[in-house]
Amino acid sequence: MIPRYSRPDMVAIWSPETKFRIWYEIEAHACDAQADLGVIPRANADAVWKAKDVDFDVARIDEIEAVTKHDVIAFLTHLAEHVGSDAARFVHQGMTSSDVLDTCFNVQLTRAADLLIADLEGLLAALKRRALEHKDTVRIGRSHGIHAEPTTMGLTFARFYAEMDRNLSRMRDARSEIATGAISGAVGTFANIDPAVEEHVCDKLGLVPEPISTQVIPRDRHAAFFATLGVVASSIENVATEIRHMQRTEVLEAEEFFSKGQKGSSAMPHKRNPVLTENLTGLARLVRGMVIPALENVALWHERDISHSSVERNIGPDATITLDFALSRLTGVIDNLVIYPETMLNNLHKFKGLVMSQRVLLALTQAGVSREDAYALVQRNAMKVWEEGRDFREELLADPEVTAVLSPEEIEEKFDLGYHTKHVDTIFARVFGE
Amino acid sequence: MIPRYSRPDMVAIWSPETKFRIWYEIEAHACDAQADLGVIPRANADAVWKAKDVDFDVARIDEIEAVTKHDVIAFLTHLAEHVGSDAARFVHQGMTSSDVLDTCFNVQLTRAADLLIADLEGLLAALKRRALEHKDTVRIGRSHGIHAEPTTMGLTFARFYAEMDRNLSRMRDARSEIATGAISGAVGTFANIDPAVEEHVCDKLGLVPEPISTQVIPRDRHAAFFATLGVVASSIENVATEIRHMQRTEVLEAEEFFSKGQKGSSAMPHKRNPVLTENLTGLARLVRGMVIPALENVALWHERDISHSSVERNIGPDATITLDFALSRLTGVIDNLVIYPETMLNNLHKFKGLVMSQRVLLALTQAGVSREDAYALVQRNAMKVWEEGRDFREELLADPEVTAVLSPEEIEEKFDLGYHTKHVDTIFARVFGE
Amino acid sequence: MIPRYSRPDMVAIWSPETKFRIWYEIEAHACDAQADLGVIPRANADAVWKAKDVDFDVARIDEIEAVTKHDVIAFLTHLAEHVGSDAARFVHQGMTSSDVLDTCFNVQLTRAADLLIADLEGLLAALKRRALEHKDTVRIGRSHGIHAEPTTMGLTFARFYAEMDRNLSRMRDARSEIATGAISGAVGTFANIDPAVEEHVCDKLGLVPEPISTQVIPRDRHAAFFATLGVVASSIENVATEIRHMQRTEVLEAEEFFSKGQKGSSAMPHKRNPVLTENLTGLARLVRGMVIPALENVALWHERDISHSSVERNIGPDATITLDFALSRLTGVIDNLVIYPETMLNNLHKFKGLVMSQRVLLALTQAGVSREDAYALVQRNAMKVWEEGRDFREELLADPEVTAVLSPEEIEEKFDLGYHTKHVDTIFARVFGE
Amino acid sequence: MIPRYSRPDMVAIWSPETKFRIWYEIEAHACDAQADLGVIPRANADAVWKAKDVDFDVARIDEIEAVTKHDVIAFLTHLAEHVGSDAARFVHQGMTSSDVLDTCFNVQLTRAADLLIADLEGLLAALKRRALEHKDTVRIGRSHGIHAEPTTMGLTFARFYAEMDRNLSRMRDARSEIATGAISGAVGTFANIDPAVEEHVCDKLGLVPEPISTQVIPRDRHAAFFATLGVVASSIENVATEIRHMQRTEVLEAEEFFSKGQKGSSAMPHKRNPVLTENLTGLARLVRGMVIPALENVALWHERDISHSSVERNIGPDATITLDFALSRLTGVIDNLVIYPETMLNNLHKFKGLVMSQRVLLALTQAGVSREDAYALVQRNAMKVWEEGRDFREELLADPEVTAVLSPEEIEEKFDLGYHTKHVDTIFARVFGE
Repeated sequence: MIPRYSRPDMVAIWSPETKFRIWYEIEAHACDAQADLGVIPRANADAVWKAKDVDFDVARIDEIEAVTKHDVIAFLTHLAEHVGSDAARFVHQGMTSSDVLDTCFNVQLTRAADLLIADLEGLLAALKRRALEHKDTVRIGRSHGIHAEPTTMGLTFARFYAEMDRNLSRMRDARSEIATGAISGAVGTFANIDPAVEEHVCDKLGLVPEPISTQVIPRDRHAAFFATLGVVASSIENVATEIRHMQRTEVLEAEEFFSKGQKGSSAMPHKRNPVLTENLTGLARLVRGMVIPALENVALWHERDISHSSVERNIGPDATITLDFALSRLTGVIDNLVIYPETMLNNLHKFKGLVMSQRVLLALTQAGVSREDAYALVQRNAMKVWEEGRDFREELLADPEVTAVLSPEEIEEKFDLGYHTKHVDTIFARVFGE
Repeated sequence: MIPRYSRPDMVAIWSPETKFRIWYEIEAHACDAQADLGVIPRANADAVWKAKDVDFDVARIDEIEAVTKHDVIAFLTHLAEHVGSDAARFVHQGMTSSDVLDTCFNVQLTRAADLLIADLEGLLAALKRRALEHKDTVRIGRSHGIHAEPTTMGLTFARFYAEMDRNLSRMRDARSEIATGAISGAVGTFANIDPAVEEHVCDKLGLVPEPISTQVIPRDRHAAFFATLGVVASSIENVATEIRHMQRTEVLEAEEFFSKGQKGSSAMPHKRNPVLTENLTGLARLVRGMVIPALENVALWHERDISHSSVERNIGPDATITLDFALSRLTGVIDNLVIYPETMLNNLHKFKGLVMSQRVLLALTQAGVSREDAYALVQRNAMKVWEEGRDFREELLADPEVTAVLSPEEIEEKFDLGYHTKHVDTIFARVFGE
Repeated sequence: MIPRYSRPDMVAIWSPETKFRIWYEIEAHACDAQADLGVIPRANADAVWKAKDVDFDVARIDEIEAVTKHDVIAFLTHLAEHVGSDAARFVHQGMTSSDVLDTCFNVQLTRAADLLIADLEGLLAALKRRALEHKDTVRIGRSHGIHAEPTTMGLTFARFYAEMDRNLSRMRDARSEIATGAISGAVGTFANIDPAVEEHVCDKLGLVPEPISTQVIPRDRHAAFFATLGVVASSIENVATEIRHMQRTEVLEAEEFFSKGQKGSSAMPHKRNPVLTENLTGLARLVRGMVIPALENVALWHERDISHSSVERNIGPDATITLDFALSRLTGVIDNLVIYPETMLNNLHKFKGLVMSQRVLLALTQAGVSREDAYALVQRNAMKVWEEGRDFREELLADPEVTAVLSPEEIEEKFDLGYHTKHVDTIFARVFGE
Repeated sequence: MIPRYSRPDMVAIWSPETKFRIWYEIEAHACDAQADLGVIPRANADAVWKAKDVDFDVARIDEIEAVTKHDVIAFLTHLAEHVGSDAARFVHQGMTSSDVLDTCFNVQLTRAADLLIADLEGLLAALKRRALEHKDTVRIGRSHGIHAEPTTMGLTFARFYAEMDRNLSRMRDARSEIATGAISGAVGTFANIDPAVEEHVCDKLGLVPEPISTQVIPRDRHAAFFATLGVVASSIENVATEIRHMQRTEVLEAEEFFSKGQKGSSAMPHKRNPVLTENLTGLARLVRGMVIPALENVALWHERDISHSSVERNIGPDATITLDFALSRLTGVIDNLVIYPETMLNNLHKFKGLVMSQRVLLALTQAGVSREDAYALVQRNAMKVWEEGRDFREELLADPEVTAVLSPEEIEEKFDLGYHTKHVDTIFARVFGE
């Protein structure tokens, strides 16, 4: 992922330094377990920990790899340069490269999941704050992009909160799915290494031993993980799309925060573009596009082929870095979103009261007017609003056939916004508890 | 989905008859709740239940829809023909079509999930049975399609079991995700209907009320659902791919069951094609292809647009019917798979003992031979096997430089298959418990 | 594809009747060629043509297939019932089922392409008509959903025309790609059949012989075909999205045609939903989702496996039927789209003249004002418009610092819409030719 | 794309240096055209060319962008540092950033297409050479992974040649599609710039003017471009899959070249993994995954939104760099592929003559034996081969009921491999021309 759409903490998870650090921990903990089993001398296992605080030299490892053509061997060679060839002699014994690579990859994905979980928690906090702030800010609800009935901005935030809360739960499941390790040897039979080593290493790294692996950890876990990222990304697009709609010139119910310094803001005050949420829309597409390759990675040949590797070298960092960036950007957008309650009311009243026509129709039929007659009554007044810009309520109050069955108070009541917001507290209690 | 890849129980869930039955139940339960609230007369609510055992006439409803151009209104009109226009008068009051459509869709998906869960349980039973049966059936493990170290056919079945068991857990989560209902009105504010109605209807239909809906139930739930189907489908491809490999002429470690009657079987005994697992590979692609549209459905405009509808009318039935068929077909394949243990051994021994070369190499170094010398010793004997078809063990036993450091018993031990299967019980205990 | 989104001509291409008719033609033409080569008796080849006008009995063929478990054999058996077992004896000689199936599939795809090409031509005609009609209908151009500079509705139609014209060209290429046939035997070597048969059959069916086939026609052709459908579908979404935006309540520059009879239209005149274009958006997702399975079908094993078949049995009809329906629906939408030029002007003037602020800024700098000063001048007048609802032009005319460098005529000119439309004819000439 | 899967020429196309160089050329040529039109002074236009040989300082431009928050302005500011503020004053006049960005992106894609076209040509040369080399190298053709009839390795290479040749043609079309430029202003109306500028710039850059653009070049072009890359990638997977199958231990008809130095090659001579083609399989998934985001980019809002940008910043380089690397790697694999003709024959004869059973069956029926009897005759001899390892030809020759209708010569002829290769020259002529 390009720097423009990256944040340092997530990038760090995918750095070579982090990778080698995790490899080291896997190897060192494995030595401990092997020593406990009496397979290797305790002294050698202890000696490996001499490198505990070493910053491994990535350039040096690359240099060795250029010769050995094998990344794990290159690392082990470099490790020997730190702990001495005698201690190093027993490192990696009975293990395969995949034991290290796959366990490391899952550690990285688990840590990435932790960041994404924290991102979601941050986003939820912002959404909740804005939801409470605008609990009673009335705006028109729209189906098909067309005015339907009133709702509130708080409900909009609340539904995004509920959606992101589900995503939080999904991410936690995804984290749990991926937090496994395997040190099971060439085809997963533990022929050359005791299962106790796997248990020890996993325990130390915060992983669960993979119940049954081959040379690799089964890729359905990764597929489920990346599919979850795809769902979260699609939810980001959902929120972004709402904001893009709100900011369009004719609607203008909200704007992404536009700092005073940003050029052009006031000479063209109408020209503030929702570029952050548009960008989020694109980032969602990117993450979504990585779901299919992850699904295609599941069907490896026999005990493993390496086709998944090039995919994961890319989508591992790319999907998590992009999603981390996107969640953070979205949190910023929500936190700073400028809301225009007055415009919301203006929009709601754009066709003076017409959005209440259904309530009036219902009231007429409930007052005993036949469906056909009620329809005709509403229609003739609605058309005056639509075509001549009249006020629907005033027209109804002035229509004797209407007032013959509905009192002025009853008519007025149909235009009461409180009718539409009376259950907002109920819904908020459902979403936010209490 | 075409009949060829469909099973009747899943097809029935998506029939118009089932749909109208669910619509009816939603409406009738809603009337009950409305009567409890005093919104409509109890007698009218009761009267709606007169249609309890009616098989709704799909052709008649279609006929009405041709006039009204609205499916829910057509259904309600037809319902009135059964329960009388007086009772029908209060049906659907305060509700929108989406309340019915979305809740119904989730009922259907929940039922579909139930079938898929049962399918997975059936598949798991078959995998477990075959795993136990072939726990000790030794075969060569392969990485990159190349012989690596011995494993057992039981472990192969066991890893598919573990993978499908994870899928079972994912399907249960997906079912739980999708088992919500919403009766919340035009934009989800309950303006025209009390939340108690939603609670009652959901309770009766085995659903949980959607905490916050708009006109529709949020589509991240459906995205997660279909993404899960995509993961399950990819696991099916994984199993299918293994079997296709096993059945290829040069490997022939297993064959899909081929009934005696099937034409051509014995005149061309070599020509038994793994057509079922190839078919499953294709079906997996189909289901996987439906994940992206489901993810794209999440970002609806404002309180809803109807772009998701045409997608779901197709992928709702198609993905579940295909996956149900595929799981069932795979269960049959596993149940009847013909395993050839003798061929497995023959394949394992194809390069007479060469797959043990790594163990020999390790033994030599552990016996004190330098890495370089050990390598040279193994190499010169290995090449005789590779180029002249000699037996690796015999060559080693005849090589004085080898026997100088390893006793015949030690050499023999390196070719002991038991070395590779010693932890099979441990792994089985992890996978199957006990 | 479900009937709701299907048109009869395209459905007919995928009917069993059509399929058997094509199979028949392949077999009958192959007999002719075989007779010409002297491989089979001429009389027998002639006899096969006795079935020329037969409507094959699908139910009967299904009945036979239930026994033979093989569709091509079932058909051949049924054919024998029509032409006599003696003539039938030489039918299919030297051929494999795939010769028939693959060649038939490509005939169907070619015919489907012909319909889609006709659909595109119909759409182009509608777009061109509306483009010419609204060549000079000024509306505001929007970037990021924000007012930018004026453009015309004709240009909007014209750009969709140009895009669909490219799609027409792509569809023609796709048709040409897929119009191949193969009658090359079990693994494509023509071991049992002369290449002349393939040539003859292809010639009669309007196909080109596949230069080199295996048992099947290579699937990169099909991948390219379905990828093209995915591009066309995405263009449909592009047009649909524009219309959905135009119809949203706050914009209301256009509406899908809403027939007088459609319920609710006039009692809730504001509530006309762009359901057709929303539907098209969903259909585009469906077609797009079928691209990936088609791409995954390319890598078949060796001379063929049958994994592609289940995919194609679905996406063959589904993608073409959906796209045919979508193109037709879009043509109807374009043909009948109700355009509101007055609203377009109102929207353009929503922030009284502010969209011209950039031209004014430029004019000031060109008149020698420094960039900073020009910016300040524009800003202070723009803010009066933005915050107080004043008219930008009037403010400028009343600002002595502005009028010091720009004459009233020069200021007026900046608000001339003709400035923006002066190259419309040039663009139209590019798009539509002279 | 990570360095591991990148080649320098393609990477260079996407470097900031290249980008700024292209921007410069666009701006400088635009100045020329503007001077020709008399819009800006000729001297100023000429002065811009002073920077002709300048290597723009990326760090400096980044520095400026950190302040201006706008990449094009940053570049123009830096340009002014080279050509002087007087000359720079007229640079970019009447243009928008998108004019530069979109035209530049298409220049980059066009150049990338040129490299990919060259890659394909290189691959085609390798495939042709190997096809001719192995034109007559007989191997068994396989359907469903099961032995079918003989074919030749040359035909395998030839069909990949034909497929890649189609891809070459598709890439040329894709290049032609994407080789357009646009300098049409804020919403594509040329309000502030004469179309002649666009024509001049495009002419100089080897592009065609986009007939109608908005603020951006329409994204259906890019969708078609990336879809083509997805097809090419899928073809790469097709070839890679064949080689992976050929190299698996039990088949071993070919191996990726394994340099003498590569560790482990001779101590474990059986363990040479097809890691390059496995890697190619993964790379194909990556490229394929980028098709969907490109298709989703088509439907931008109105005259543009910027959602496509983040997608393209990634998939622009990633898809082309990956595909370039993959094509080059595949060419190397093909060039150096080690073919084992002897193993091919051994595999073909694995079930001694059984693959000829169908020819024998046909011969018997043609000799007048009834279908049922012929079948029984073949069956009883085939089963002896299958179950007892006998030789099919010998069994037939020893079966009096067979020899009663077929002479020994006729029987022998059925096992003649030449029967299967007799049309290889015909096919080669079709694929490679005379």
